[in-house]
Amino acid sequence: MSAPKSAPKKVVLAYSGGLDTSIILKWLQTEYGCEVVTFTADLGQGEELEPARKKAEMMGAKEIFIEDLREEFVRDFVFPMFRANAVYEGLYLLGTSIARPLISKRLIEIAEATGADAVAHGATGKGNDQVRFELSAYALNPEIKVIAPWREWSLTSRTKLLAFAEENQIPIAKDKRGEAPFSVDANLLHTSSEGKVLENPAEEAPDYVYQRTVDPEKAPNEPEYVEITFEKGDAVAINGEAMSPATVLTRLNELGGKHGIGRLDLVEGRFVGMKSRGIYETPGGTILLEAHRGIEQITLDRGAAHLKDELMPKYAELIYNGFWFSPEREMLQALIDKSQEHVSGTVRLKLYKGSVRTVGRWSDASLYSESHVTFEDDAGAYDQKDAAGFIKLNALRLRLLATRNRKLKG
Amino acid sequence: MSAPKSAPKKVVLAYSGGLDTSIILKWLQTEYGCEVVTFTADLGQGEELEPARKKAEMMGAKEIFIEDLREEFVRDFVFPMFRANAVYEGLYLLGTSIARPLISKRLIEIAEATGADAVAHGATGKGNDQVRFELSAYALNPEIKVIAPWREWSLTSRTKLLAFAEENQIPIAKDKRGEAPFSVDANLLHTSSEGKVLENPAEEAPDYVYQRTVDPEKAPNEPEYVEITFEKGDAVAINGEAMSPATVLTRLNELGGKHGIGRLDLVEGRFVGMKSRGIYETPGGTILLEAHRGIEQITLDRGAAHLKDELMPKYAELIYNGFWFSPEREMLQALIDKSQEHVSGTVRLKLYKGSVRTVGRWSDASLYSESHVTFEDDAGAYDQKDAAGFIKLNALRLRLLATRNRKLKG
Amino acid sequence: MSAPKSAPKKVVLAYSGGLDTSIILKWLQTEYGCEVVTFTADLGQGEELEPARKKAEMMGAKEIFIEDLREEFVRDFVFPMFRANAVYEGLYLLGTSIARPLISKRLIEIAEATGADAVAHGATGKGNDQVRFELSAYALNPEIKVIAPWREWSLTSRTKLLAFAEENQIPIAKDKRGEAPFSVDANLLHTSSEGKVLENPAEEAPDYVYQRTVDPEKAPNEPEYVEITFEKGDAVAINGEAMSPATVLTRLNELGGKHGIGRLDLVEGRFVGMKSRGIYETPGGTILLEAHRGIEQITLDRGAAHLKDELMPKYAELIYNGFWFSPEREMLQALIDKSQEHVSGTVRLKLYKGSVRTVGRWSDASLYSESHVTFEDDAGAYDQKDAAGFIKLNALRLRLLATRNRKLKG
Amino acid sequence: MSAPKSAPKKVVLAYSGGLDTSIILKWLQTEYGCEVVTFTADLGQGEELEPARKKAEMMGAKEIFIEDLREEFVRDFVFPMFRANAVYEGLYLLGTSIARPLISKRLIEIAEATGADAVAHGATGKGNDQVRFELSAYALNPEIKVIAPWREWSLTSRTKLLAFAEENQIPIAKDKRGEAPFSVDANLLHTSSEGKVLENPAEEAPDYVYQRTVDPEKAPNEPEYVEITFEKGDAVAINGEAMSPATVLTRLNELGGKHGIGRLDLVEGRFVGMKSRGIYETPGGTILLEAHRGIEQITLDRGAAHLKDELMPKYAELIYNGFWFSPEREMLQALIDKSQEHVSGTVRLKLYKGSVRTVGRWSDASLYSESHVTFEDDAGAYDQKDAAGFIKLNALRLRLLATRNRKLKG
Repeated sequence: MSAPKSAPKKVVLAYSGGLDTSIILKWLQTEYGCEVVTFTADLGQGEELEPARKKAEMMGAKEIFIEDLREEFVRDFVFPMFRANAVYEGLYLLGTSIARPLISKRLIEIAEATGADAVAHGATGKGNDQVRFELSAYALNPEIKVIAPWREWSLTSRTKLLAFAEENQIPIAKDKRGEAPFSVDANLLHTSSEGKVLENPAEEAPDYVYQRTVDPEKAPNEPEYVEITFEKGDAVAINGEAMSPATVLTRLNELGGKHGIGRLDLVEGRFVGMKSRGIYETPGGTILLEAHRGIEQITLDRGAAHLKDELMPKYAELIYNGFWFSPEREMLQALIDKSQEHVSGTVRLKLYKGSVRTVGRWSDASLYSESHVTFEDDAGAYDQKDAAGFIKLNALRLRLLATRNRKLKG
Repeated sequence: MSAPKSAPKKVVLAYSGGLDTSIILKWLQTEYGCEVVTFTADLGQGEELEPARKKAEMMGAKEIFIEDLREEFVRDFVFPMFRANAVYEGLYLLGTSIARPLISKRLIEIAEATGADAVAHGATGKGNDQVRFELSAYALNPEIKVIAPWREWSLTSRTKLLAFAEENQIPIAKDKRGEAPFSVDANLLHTSSEGKVLENPAEEAPDYVYQRTVDPEKAPNEPEYVEITFEKGDAVAINGEAMSPATVLTRLNELGGKHGIGRLDLVEGRFVGMKSRGIYETPGGTILLEAHRGIEQITLDRGAAHLKDELMPKYAELIYNGFWFSPEREMLQALIDKSQEHVSGTVRLKLYKGSVRTVGRWSDASLYSESHVTFEDDAGAYDQKDAAGFIKLNALRLRLLATRNRKLKG
Repeated sequence: MSAPKSAPKKVVLAYSGGLDTSIILKWLQTEYGCEVVTFTADLGQGEELEPARKKAEMMGAKEIFIEDLREEFVRDFVFPMFRANAVYEGLYLLGTSIARPLISKRLIEIAEATGADAVAHGATGKGNDQVRFELSAYALNPEIKVIAPWREWSLTSRTKLLAFAEENQIPIAKDKRGEAPFSVDANLLHTSSEGKVLENPAEEAPDYVYQRTVDPEKAPNEPEYVEITFEKGDAVAINGEAMSPATVLTRLNELGGKHGIGRLDLVEGRFVGMKSRGIYETPGGTILLEAHRGIEQITLDRGAAHLKDELMPKYAELIYNGFWFSPEREMLQALIDKSQEHVSGTVRLKLYKGSVRTVGRWSDASLYSESHVTFEDDAGAYDQKDAAGFIKLNALRLRLLATRNRKLKG
Repeated sequence: MSAPKSAPKKVVLAYSGGLDTSIILKWLQTEYGCEVVTFTADLGQGEELEPARKKAEMMGAKEIFIEDLREEFVRDFVFPMFRANAVYEGLYLLGTSIARPLISKRLIEIAEATGADAVAHGATGKGNDQVRFELSAYALNPEIKVIAPWREWSLTSRTKLLAFAEENQIPIAKDKRGEAPFSVDANLLHTSSEGKVLENPAEEAPDYVYQRTVDPEKAPNEPEYVEITFEKGDAVAINGEAMSPATVLTRLNELGGKHGIGRLDLVEGRFVGMKSRGIYETPGGTILLEAHRGIEQITLDRGAAHLKDELMPKYAELIYNGFWFSPEREMLQALIDKSQEHVSGTVRLKLYKGSVRTVGRWSDASLYSESHVTFEDDAGAYDQKDAAGFIKLNALRLRLLATRNRKLKG
């Protein structure tokens, strides 16, 4: 493993087609005199990708990759993460974090396919995304060069960026002349908004920030029920209709968005050290998390469930910090996946004005035993006298402690 | 520590005044020929206690303890637990679990004050409550005898219980002749309902089960804002008005109940081994948990917060399993309390039709630094170039791994 | 799952051939009038098994199973456990704990093969072994009846046992007339001694307790080197000679025993609640643990290693408590095994008068990079300037904390 | 918190008096034209400090701090860490790691006392020590500037360093002309050696590396017993003689050194990402750890002990990584200290040719109950029948699992 110091010769750029990454494309060509390969992915962000092709062509990119990664995204990243019931700092469903490793994976694969020796991304030097992109890239190719223009260049203000764009004939959409009132990231799992008008965590986020969920107050006055079916921990059907991973999530997003579900206003601790405030909308994911917990309630053993619960925060932290492609995340995934073998069955949920609640669940793999728990005659399934010994031996060490402590007190 | 085997001479009974514990009172007198001291506590369950005194007197109890423990309950049990953001199996706020150790503590104290050598409770042999009562009792007095009539007697059906009551002139309220359609436990933190009509976890709980929260669909059409102020992790004021712990929780219960907040339908893993289904209503507690997380977001360091998150499931499990009075719970409490020194400030929340969401938070102890996180010019607070080295060294082991793995592959 | 209450019809007994289990054999026949199948396993305890066959025949057993399980024991139980570096309470290598689930597994398999409805074991009601036997049995066959004579019968003193033996023509070896000065359990992994002369934890264990290791003071005056080769976390060769799992352990036992390695005097916390004192001899296992740590040092990534370290105590506790056949142990095993893929290579150790120390290790899968760590010129492998940014961002939250705390102090 | 960017005006240097830190002293004066305050601490490294004063004076330092910190080091850093039984990666007793925060603490205090705006240290950019020094410094003073010459200057070879020294009239001891064959760090807790002749982890470290412990083969042929008395988790007396913390450790170092105890050859994972190989000698600490475990065995409850065991790796990692002054380390310390209230009593150990073993322990606070554990008649202290219920309920979930799995298999 040698030190990746010298100038890059060919760079694969994570290219959205927007103004910022277009500037980066040009800057890479100018700064390094290198060839730039563009990579644009459909992760369900809800934008057309073909304009990106035209722009890339216009700016001289000769190799242009445009790919629909929605199924891979949900199947290989979102679903494994939901098997863990992962939430960061108690609340955040990791919508941005989980998309980054997939983009890096494709960047590296394309670099290898096209003979590029570097990759580049448009994340700033203050955020978590740079870390996620780069840790993934290095984990997949230890020799790769990573270029993060926002940490390198002198285009440190909006004015300078626009001037650079004009100098280089980069088209600027009218609505990009002024600055956006906040910054947005979106994919099939969530939309996040942060910065500028959202920077004071004391002030309620204005309505216009929300892009994907209706205001709960404007959601339907009638609740709606939905049934989600799981196999081995993954959602495979909605209301009895089997569908692919990305389709499941798309459908749940529609349902959640309609009912104002999945809004979150959070101040979180970034891996790079400061706290930031984000507004997250995760409509389908919020329903999915509730449903997954619902099906685990009847199909997952208590010992398995509690072990998962104890390890979840670490697992979520690893994903948040960018360590998807790390041995410890893979070890935890092996543990989690092992637990999901019988997490199969159906959950019934009620959606209403911003909330989703499990109201029923059933499964052929259920561990719930009415004969054991019943208040009625249990036909001998459970001998209440066993509880006496159970308590006695659980208490023994506490009694020995109390006896010791009494003796010491005199 | 000698073996507590011989028959009890004097028993302190956790006495609600209801039919079941009245039968127990009589049964203890009959079965053991012992004197029974009754103890009835107001933990906010919403029932009058004076009738219990009359009944106890009528049944021959000579020492009758009736106490309002609401402040102690919230101050010394509920609030410490909420400092940990404790939830069991991802969802349950431990409303029943946290009340049991307080009752046991008073049972033991009264036993010592009255010279009793035993305590008794009315929990069945299938549930968690017997464990919680008894572990607490033994931890506080290793010589105490504990009597759990439900595990001992032969009154194993409703018919036999009623027959015993009639034989012994125990008054039976008209509505107790038939069996209740489900079983209820209530205190200032929550109401739980389980059993009978709720035993099929596939079926939605009927409306009449809910006792303390309005149906979200019938909650006000206008959202309501509330501001909760914390000091060292505990709520001390609502909308700027300082109030005692029990008053805080009472007021939040009113707000939560009015807006349909805090309903939970859960299948959980009991410590005694089987799964059971419960309907929980925790209106004030649900608001409090959200608010506490909100204030921690700006006042608690990331390292502290993540450590708390990792240990929370174990802490919650200890409380659920009845180990409140154990060294490990006390150790965790010391860790948690240490973290709360600066968890002070105010959270603004929005209550609406079943949901509560943080919309703002502020504090003199805030760790949020707009100058560090801003998308605008940060005047040098943060040097983006630092991120390059940060990522490089975080990546180093992953690059060494990848290099090794590549070498091995070929 | 119905309640296993009625009397057993046919019982498989874990039969050692010794006096105690011979008495149990007879007692089962007498007490329950049931047929008894005997099962005697060679787990490396160092006793001949054929006498057990004769005795069982003589006492009327018609189905007699005698099996050499040494390879299965090491391959499927000892080695997976050593992949985790499992030690209980910091010191105990779990030699007894790990043997019990294998015995139970065979008891259940034999029960199913012979149509028996029950299994029986000779562990007392005070120890951990009863728990380990029975949890394993129930986990493998939820309908099985388990008979633990020591918890049931009235043969509660040595005198009564001997009387029962004489009444029933059970031969009593001369040296069994008196009581043994302590109790022993042995298998290929260890010998444990406890009870009686060892019950005062203040007093040094007498020399005659040790059965398997020479007194370090009497060990050779010359140190001896040994090289152990691992593949995927398991030892596969000693001094370059490939050998089977049981052979590896046997050979290491010889080496360790000769050099006085692996003696442990421990007071431990039993699962049933009291503390007990044991003298353990684990000669080969102690060498193996040191060696496994040695090979992990160069082949296991830091993130993987630290995750393993954090989970090890829980894993060890599960094995100690008898939960080998539980979902949570299996989940942890999946995590551990995932980490061992490249734990291959050779460790050189020095054995001398009671201690074993790693003195060298090498591997094709080594992650150790001399070019990165060297004090000499590293040819650019590592840029020391990266460390500045790494530290700055790791420090950021601590600086924000300190700034906040200073502000609050005024 | 403003950005500490501008040049330092006055620097407090951690000054050993050796060649390297003398070069740093001069370089700071030259490079920044700033005043340098020197700080030299006696942490038990076994070197005279007065020569450092003379050298500092000669080189123009006007403020010179020379302090004996041995008692503070052991009392406030080493002992709290040993309460946790902290070992890093299973083996390393953290001898270097634990000294760094104390040095930083005094650097910051001296900076504040002398009006300095910066601190400087002589750790290189490849190691952990730079991180430990700097994280501690920033945590204690968020505005401090930290100067790490090894990451900044151009003196990147031995030749350049010596040339700089000669140019600047810095005296060079004869034995420093050539390069040392390895690098050493020492304090009262340990001596570590690394680098150069030790860089090949396959090769056994040569004898001359060891400085503080006799070769076990040359240790006395007679074992020696020692008794260590603890109060609240800290060692307070040896063989019945009360002594101060630093005296305890000094005495144990003598004993351990004499018997060849505490040698460790380790390849460890550094926080900065690569693996390194170190030879550690921790004679007194190794005895202390064994003794502390010994006293905990009889005085610490199982629940408390297991919680400590589970958290120890994280606690050790925090210290290793330099996070002594972090909220999470302080939270863990609160938890650990809470557990030590009754960890008082005496342990008897046997020292012999490289090994230390507990052979006895006693305490007024003992939780060991011979009456519970005895193989003899226990006079009813323990009812073996309780174990049946204990096992039954612990097995219940496993039986429900097995029943479910059988049903699914058909």
